[in-house]
Amino acid sequence: METLHVVKIGGNIVNDEKKLDKFLSTFIQLNSPKILVHGGGSSASDLCQKLDIPIQMINGRRITDEPALDVAVMVYAGLINKKIVARLQGQSCNALGLSGADLNIIPAEKRTGTEIDYGFVGDIHADSINTHFITRLLDEQVIPAISAITHDTKGQLLNTNADTIASTLSVALSDKYEVELTYCFEKNGVLHDEDDEKTLIKTLEYDAFENLKQKKVIHEGMIPKLDTAFEALNKYVQRVQIKHANNLLKDIGTKLSL
Amino acid sequence: METLHVVKIGGNIVNDEKKLDKFLSTFIQLNSPKILVHGGGSSASDLCQKLDIPIQMINGRRITDEPALDVAVMVYAGLINKKIVARLQGQSCNALGLSGADLNIIPAEKRTGTEIDYGFVGDIHADSINTHFITRLLDEQVIPAISAITHDTKGQLLNTNADTIASTLSVALSDKYEVELTYCFEKNGVLHDEDDEKTLIKTLEYDAFENLKQKKVIHEGMIPKLDTAFEALNKYVQRVQIKHANNLLKDIGTKLSL
Repeated sequence: METLHVVKIGGNIVNDEKKLDKFLSTFIQLNSPKILVHGGGSSASDLCQKLDIPIQMINGRRITDEPALDVAVMVYAGLINKKIVARLQGQSCNALGLSGADLNIIPAEKRTGTEIDYGFVGDIHADSINTHFITRLLDEQVIPAISAITHDTKGQLLNTNADTIASTLSVALSDKYEVELTYCFEKNGVLHDEDDEKTLIKTLEYDAFENLKQKKVIHEGMIPKLDTAFEALNKYVQRVQIKHANNLLKDIGTKLSL
Repeated sequence: METLHVVKIGGNIVNDEKKLDKFLSTFIQLNSPKILVHGGGSSASDLCQKLDIPIQMINGRRITDEPALDVAVMVYAGLINKKIVARLQGQSCNALGLSGADLNIIPAEKRTGTEIDYGFVGDIHADSINTHFITRLLDEQVIPAISAITHDTKGQLLNTNADTIASTLSVALSDKYEVELTYCFEKNGVLHDEDDEKTLIKTLEYDAFENLKQKKVIHEGMIPKLDTAFEALNKYVQRVQIKHANNLLKDIGTKLSL
């Protein structure tokens, strides 16, 4: 089977034009076929603040009400997505920006039945991903750039975590490709000491992850990322790595292992 | 040749959820292949105002500086485009939202050499439109929903008038299709008296248009729209009409004639 690269790029990179350009000029050097999934980081919160849209929190969890969803759609599916597409096109890379609603590639279900009403948040499943059009696009040497916006297939847009999208897409496409999933962010990988880049864990096994979680060595933000990453590895994704955005082409980072 | 419908929908409709839903439920009844081009109307200005981004004017012409461009991209290519796509998908219509940067479908040139520096405004030409991918998508029964954002092919997004995009796309595609271009807005068509819907001009010939322009019967906002409309008709587009959004399927409106 052909190798497909699925690369997730985090908010801290996409919100910084210089870092984004540097990352994209590396990304285009990866062999095709490839897919870029991007988050938006703090830029949606920043815009909410400027617009005096209060950020609703219940029990420490953020709620996506309608104004917050509109801002997420504007920032993720609009500004960030189109900037990425224009930059890639500027480097002769035939990018196509997509939300999960476009071509119905990522149908989602509005999260319900939870204790907290999270608002317009979409849960997704690998079985529902519309791989037909994604594969057609990849066959045409198109580079999909996917934002973390999905829809309920009944007309409503939803917000879905970008790490989850990258993982679920990778699982869905592992029928047709040997998928290599890479999460890029601003650290060298998973670290024993989050303030010391030298403490990189080169290979992280699932048992060790569970152990480090219990010992609270792996901190809050990394846990859901690693949960989605291990889920991908558990469901036939060939290779899952966590890397610094600058090291996409280099053999430096954390490789996950079951 | 097969008939292709290109429908431009104006800002006053897309900014009103009820009107938009009504229009879209009519639009989906049009035979495929079809393309929707949308503007954004006052919604970008409204967001600029909320964000305290001053609207720059020189000699009565609006200037698109960087903050204004970012807002246009967020609103047109983001919020409005993705809402339209989700609504169409909700009615089992396989829509794909596109800016001109996506798949490089609409390369533009930043307007230069004019007395006024208009900022990030893109001029486009039918010869440069990338009809290959548009045709491929139409062949796959995809409905492109196109926002009025283009790019310079060097990494920079640009803002282009939506009427111009609808006209230029129609011209570019008239090699392969019998194109029917319809501009939908909130009036019955071109009116002799803009306050009296009964004064509809059913057929507008080019000479009569020039005459009504001189007599100032056709007012400012309509002139660039009709200029682009006549240009399409002049360049092999089969049929060009100006209609009320509610009358898309009805034989009520202004038909242009050379």
